[in-house]
Amino acid sequence: MDYVYGPGRNHLFVPGPVNIPEQVLRAMNRNNEDYRSPAVPALTKTLLEDVKKIFKTTSGTPFLFPTTGTGAWESALTNTLSPGDRIVSFLIGQFSLLWIDQQQRLNFKVDVIESDWGEGAKLDVLAAKLAADTDHTIKAVCIVHNETATGVTNDLSLVRRILDEYRHPALFLVDGVSSICALDFRMDDWGVDVALTGSQKALSLPTGIGIVCASPRALEASKTAKSLRVFFDWKDYLKFYNLGTYWPYTPSIQLLYGLRAALDLVFEEGLENVIARHKRLGQATRLAVEAWGLKNCTQKEEWHSDTVTAVLVPPYIDSSEIVRRAWKRYNLSLGLGLNKVAGKVFRIGHLGHLNELQLLGCLAGVEMILKDVGYPVKLGSGVAAASSYFQNNIPLIPSRI
Amino acid sequence: MDYVYGPGRNHLFVPGPVNIPEQVLRAMNRNNEDYRSPAVPALTKTLLEDVKKIFKTTSGTPFLFPTTGTGAWESALTNTLSPGDRIVSFLIGQFSLLWIDQQQRLNFKVDVIESDWGEGAKLDVLAAKLAADTDHTIKAVCIVHNETATGVTNDLSLVRRILDEYRHPALFLVDGVSSICALDFRMDDWGVDVALTGSQKALSLPTGIGIVCASPRALEASKTAKSLRVFFDWKDYLKFYNLGTYWPYTPSIQLLYGLRAALDLVFEEGLENVIARHKRLGQATRLAVEAWGLKNCTQKEEWHSDTVTAVLVPPYIDSSEIVRRAWKRYNLSLGLGLNKVAGKVFRIGHLGHLNELQLLGCLAGVEMILKDVGYPVKLGSGVAAASSYFQNNIPLIPSRI
Amino acid sequence: MDYVYGPGRNHLFVPGPVNIPEQVLRAMNRNNEDYRSPAVPALTKTLLEDVKKIFKTTSGTPFLFPTTGTGAWESALTNTLSPGDRIVSFLIGQFSLLWIDQQQRLNFKVDVIESDWGEGAKLDVLAAKLAADTDHTIKAVCIVHNETATGVTNDLSLVRRILDEYRHPALFLVDGVSSICALDFRMDDWGVDVALTGSQKALSLPTGIGIVCASPRALEASKTAKSLRVFFDWKDYLKFYNLGTYWPYTPSIQLLYGLRAALDLVFEEGLENVIARHKRLGQATRLAVEAWGLKNCTQKEEWHSDTVTAVLVPPYIDSSEIVRRAWKRYNLSLGLGLNKVAGKVFRIGHLGHLNELQLLGCLAGVEMILKDVGYPVKLGSGVAAASSYFQNNIPLIPSRI
Amino acid sequence: MDYVYGPGRNHLFVPGPVNIPEQVLRAMNRNNEDYRSPAVPALTKTLLEDVKKIFKTTSGTPFLFPTTGTGAWESALTNTLSPGDRIVSFLIGQFSLLWIDQQQRLNFKVDVIESDWGEGAKLDVLAAKLAADTDHTIKAVCIVHNETATGVTNDLSLVRRILDEYRHPALFLVDGVSSICALDFRMDDWGVDVALTGSQKALSLPTGIGIVCASPRALEASKTAKSLRVFFDWKDYLKFYNLGTYWPYTPSIQLLYGLRAALDLVFEEGLENVIARHKRLGQATRLAVEAWGLKNCTQKEEWHSDTVTAVLVPPYIDSSEIVRRAWKRYNLSLGLGLNKVAGKVFRIGHLGHLNELQLLGCLAGVEMILKDVGYPVKLGSGVAAASSYFQNNIPLIPSRI
Repeated sequence: MDYVYGPGRNHLFVPGPVNIPEQVLRAMNRNNEDYRSPAVPALTKTLLEDVKKIFKTTSGTPFLFPTTGTGAWESALTNTLSPGDRIVSFLIGQFSLLWIDQQQRLNFKVDVIESDWGEGAKLDVLAAKLAADTDHTIKAVCIVHNETATGVTNDLSLVRRILDEYRHPALFLVDGVSSICALDFRMDDWGVDVALTGSQKALSLPTGIGIVCASPRALEASKTAKSLRVFFDWKDYLKFYNLGTYWPYTPSIQLLYGLRAALDLVFEEGLENVIARHKRLGQATRLAVEAWGLKNCTQKEEWHSDTVTAVLVPPYIDSSEIVRRAWKRYNLSLGLGLNKVAGKVFRIGHLGHLNELQLLGCLAGVEMILKDVGYPVKLGSGVAAASSYFQNNIPLIPSRI
Repeated sequence: MDYVYGPGRNHLFVPGPVNIPEQVLRAMNRNNEDYRSPAVPALTKTLLEDVKKIFKTTSGTPFLFPTTGTGAWESALTNTLSPGDRIVSFLIGQFSLLWIDQQQRLNFKVDVIESDWGEGAKLDVLAAKLAADTDHTIKAVCIVHNETATGVTNDLSLVRRILDEYRHPALFLVDGVSSICALDFRMDDWGVDVALTGSQKALSLPTGIGIVCASPRALEASKTAKSLRVFFDWKDYLKFYNLGTYWPYTPSIQLLYGLRAALDLVFEEGLENVIARHKRLGQATRLAVEAWGLKNCTQKEEWHSDTVTAVLVPPYIDSSEIVRRAWKRYNLSLGLGLNKVAGKVFRIGHLGHLNELQLLGCLAGVEMILKDVGYPVKLGSGVAAASSYFQNNIPLIPSRI
Repeated sequence: MDYVYGPGRNHLFVPGPVNIPEQVLRAMNRNNEDYRSPAVPALTKTLLEDVKKIFKTTSGTPFLFPTTGTGAWESALTNTLSPGDRIVSFLIGQFSLLWIDQQQRLNFKVDVIESDWGEGAKLDVLAAKLAADTDHTIKAVCIVHNETATGVTNDLSLVRRILDEYRHPALFLVDGVSSICALDFRMDDWGVDVALTGSQKALSLPTGIGIVCASPRALEASKTAKSLRVFFDWKDYLKFYNLGTYWPYTPSIQLLYGLRAALDLVFEEGLENVIARHKRLGQATRLAVEAWGLKNCTQKEEWHSDTVTAVLVPPYIDSSEIVRRAWKRYNLSLGLGLNKVAGKVFRIGHLGHLNELQLLGCLAGVEMILKDVGYPVKLGSGVAAASSYFQNNIPLIPSRI
Repeated sequence: MDYVYGPGRNHLFVPGPVNIPEQVLRAMNRNNEDYRSPAVPALTKTLLEDVKKIFKTTSGTPFLFPTTGTGAWESALTNTLSPGDRIVSFLIGQFSLLWIDQQQRLNFKVDVIESDWGEGAKLDVLAAKLAADTDHTIKAVCIVHNETATGVTNDLSLVRRILDEYRHPALFLVDGVSSICALDFRMDDWGVDVALTGSQKALSLPTGIGIVCASPRALEASKTAKSLRVFFDWKDYLKFYNLGTYWPYTPSIQLLYGLRAALDLVFEEGLENVIARHKRLGQATRLAVEAWGLKNCTQKEEWHSDTVTAVLVPPYIDSSEIVRRAWKRYNLSLGLGLNKVAGKVFRIGHLGHLNELQLLGCLAGVEMILKDVGYPVKLGSGVAAASSYFQNNIPLIPSRI
């Protein structure tokens, strides 16, 4: 019937794609529609207006590309930069690595600032580069807000302060794939020029929409940027925005209605409440890891991520075995360690449509698996640490008071 | 958007209606169909054949009434008995009480054998009654296999042995609403004459099918039973079974396809594996209750239920407050104490489409709530006890080995 | 994958179960819920209030039984009458026949007033009976508003006028299964005491809710009615209405949300617009039948039904072959002729979630089938007649103007 | 509830996105999954194998890009060609125009061979160009198999014969967006090097998968092609194919299961039967147009499309008004005339999950609209012509014989 049926619900704790709310599944359960009828533009208009709220921008222009995060990256870069442009980019884990790889393949000259995996972006190096760059040869600073491979969150407000300090005009491009709509993100306050995310992350939709949001400066830059782009070109979208039909090619009707439902849920909960919930989930997870006597891959508290926690395992354990076992025995999906940290970390994604009891079930599962693979964990210890924190911090559900 | 939205998944731990697998939701996501076309009888035929397997009967005849468990009760009684018939029935909790109430309203003379709530059926009293009933005035013995209000499972094989010992011809009618397809139930081996369940229990469907299964003796009895019935009459069904069209009135197309999917999942997991899973869930729950220092409403181990656990709270706590708080703060749905045990117990349903990590999430939630309401529980203690048991007993998921 | 896959959409034109709107399918696509949480009573309350609108009653009390139309019949009768009561009932087709059969099995003394199949109820005979019944031995008049087997609609306002003329206190019980929410039905204006319908008819839901609505007089009668009932007893519902929990046993969560969506759609379209749409569909179908040179089973215009048309075929054609062929060759589901009119009529159901172009597709299909089975129809003739009427009468869709 | 609710089913006759079968909607009604678990690669493997069958290739390599047809175009071009490459492309309507626009923006030197809109590709001009190109400066011939804007199908086998005649090594790139899986298409037989389609066309899925299939020659070409590509790069896919994990970035879980269901339905019906069904739908539509006294935009029979028909309206009618009216009054979605033929044609899409009675409903609707806008059509005339053809040609549904 299905490929690998296991009884009960799959416990999905990879850092994306994440659990989809029933409300969104329902909204998407529909036939196709003519996207040139008046209904689809009317819907699209509300989406473009409301999606700006999760970027915390009023001046930005959003684009809903039928693509993934990788495509959204490409759209952000090719619309604002020209081949040969010098950019600064931080290598702190697998996803920043992949973005840098894309930047290089797109023929930008990338100043890569590398950190150990588990550390945040070296912003002091950025400062030095900007200070030295009095000719403004640096055209953009590219940074992953939250590195999904290591669970590291970078301080974007500091990036802005550094740019401002040196009055540097470089564009500020942010991968917010595993942050936007879960972590505190402020496009306008922080002067971000392009921010992007994917539908399958904190918005809790299926994969399929790469959301790119451009500041007025970014739009301006796109008029002269010489990088080749067609499918990912903002210009085609802007043309159809002006016509009021919005779509240069066929969108997914189902994802549009799904996004409508997802945004409605975010606003019903309240964006600040959503962010607070992620803070609770992140904090509880870290307390559990500590209780187990394990280390967080993230090396300093300031970088701790509230959407994903990468857990270091002792050298005598292969973290891949933990992930395999989670799936095979407990119907639990955890994230693998990737590339440099393969075998060394496993990851717990705690973003999107998720609540505290779901996380506690996951943590209880991780404890059993740790025991399975020979790590001398005290069963219940992580759950106790997490639930002790939760019991003091979970608010009543507003709609049920 | 919804009535009382809370983020993340609702943790549904009432003892029915229970969690529906996605496979079943998918199967039910369909337009209506003409139930007189060849497709619906062909489907129905497979259902009637396969549903017998979950009753463990080859000689029984199943009926899929568009009704609830209450309707299934009425069908079982009115098709086999006549007004004024003497029957024996055991009062051990709210659901046996309601069935007895129905029996009395249907004008049977009911010998009620009452137990304290939390105790099982007094089978010794049954034995005495049967021994004394040399004239065979007792026409039926009615028993709830698993009393959902108290979490008490009765020993049906012993009922059969007692009936046999006294060579008593009384019909043996069983409410298996919260047992069949979760607990060990053997219609043929135990000589059960009518057994019944509801779709929203262990089969993990929506409410809407009352499944009644009749032995050859029960079918024979239905020919002379004088109780009035029309909607619930087996005769009408048997007529349409013979015609090969199966339905005297319109069935729910969606539930038929849903039942097909539900049965397929049971067989894919294996009925014995399903039962073993419920044993694990029941045992783990009891270990948690013990670790919390609380008492199980069920007074002896022999009566412990593997589908629902009623937990006694200290007198200074109102168990209804636990249930309210579970829903309001943790998006957790627990069962209320009913009638005699209202305010005294709360119930954890652990039946149907459910796995171990889901239960551990629930148990972690219960711990926090207990603390919320002033019970000095050690957070993590119940989870530790349960997961310690699980870690030793959960098999690999067969399809994933 | 499915049992009898055919490409494209199934054209469902049986007079029930009917096509379900996507909005309703979406609303039902959900997990179970605890029906004792505050959410379900809150939802139920709105349903009970709103469902009265489709009965056009403000004083009636509705009950949402988890059952079919047959169960709703039983509930209507057993709650208001006592065994041995004399009632008047009209036999005009298969469904009135089945209801009379039920009335007799429930031990009422039924004065059956029979018509030829294709004729309406003989209300003059009713008048004569009431005139003669000065002792008021007749306790109820039972009538099917719309006989689904023959496509005959009875004049209920005339029944009321006759009852009033003779100041006869008999209860007025109406089967509105294939009329309510499609034909003009006015419970309060016409002094109907019990009216009932099923969810799978004009409300366009799956089978599973038998909606019974009782007038204050009917509720009063239920206090003394001696017919045995338990599952179908209004008393149990009223008790839970008073408690504000609404449900004596487990409802189908999915159908409750589905009913909410179905009512919302009715109100969005406007109940009078819904009725007008059914008038158009009925009239167009009859024009097509006429254009084909065939006869309507319904013998006079006053009885024409706007929800189902039974078409008489020439004696040399077996109407069952038309139905079989429709399904086998054209993926079209038509209604069989039942009982006395088996082989002689086929039926086109045109009720529920249906629009004009759907009907025209069906009519085009019927033309081809008629030709297939040897009837010399002019292809396009029925469609031309129907669309000529439609083209003059279809209003713009209000939400799209 | 919805944006523009109209009663009954929307009649979706735009040439994409098309009607989705319930089986596919069901398959897609699911939560996200970890795409790195063993389940998703196992599923993907079957998809890649089976999707080749609808391209009729055994040697091709398919890619399932999370994109639209426009993205698939870009992938086809950038993986096989280098900036400055000379290519030949045929301008015969809006979609070939858009592809040519993309080709030019991607910096290829395009020899545009233009036809009147309504004519097919001028293959004699291609022949002349190839004959003259003894140096093989032409690197690719790009052709739209079926121009969706005008309903013109080009003869691809002839393109191959011309290439072969001149032993010209140019790559043969085909847009099969509105043809593959509906029209006769033979990648291997016709020596097509890259063929592509979109999920929302004949496969009857939501928008979101751009399927690109590459011949061994195309794969070889991709090793040296210098066009910039990252998101659309085949190389990344091939790398993950080799690893057996298949995905360089996150796919849509829902679309993968949907594609599985869609392919299963195609194979259940039989690909040749699918093609034959489209032939019937196309032929019937053309007969109706003729009966109405209107002209097909397609100027010769050899170019007639079996997936979309563009109908020319008299000069005194604005075809956009027909489309608007269809939607506003009849809940019918027709295709607009685009660009050069805006206002002059409306389009009937007849591809994907569609059967004959659905089309007849549409044709009946078009007749009424024509009358609405003042064209003197004889109602029923088109339906008669179409159904006369259908009645002689529709086979029995194989699964129902």
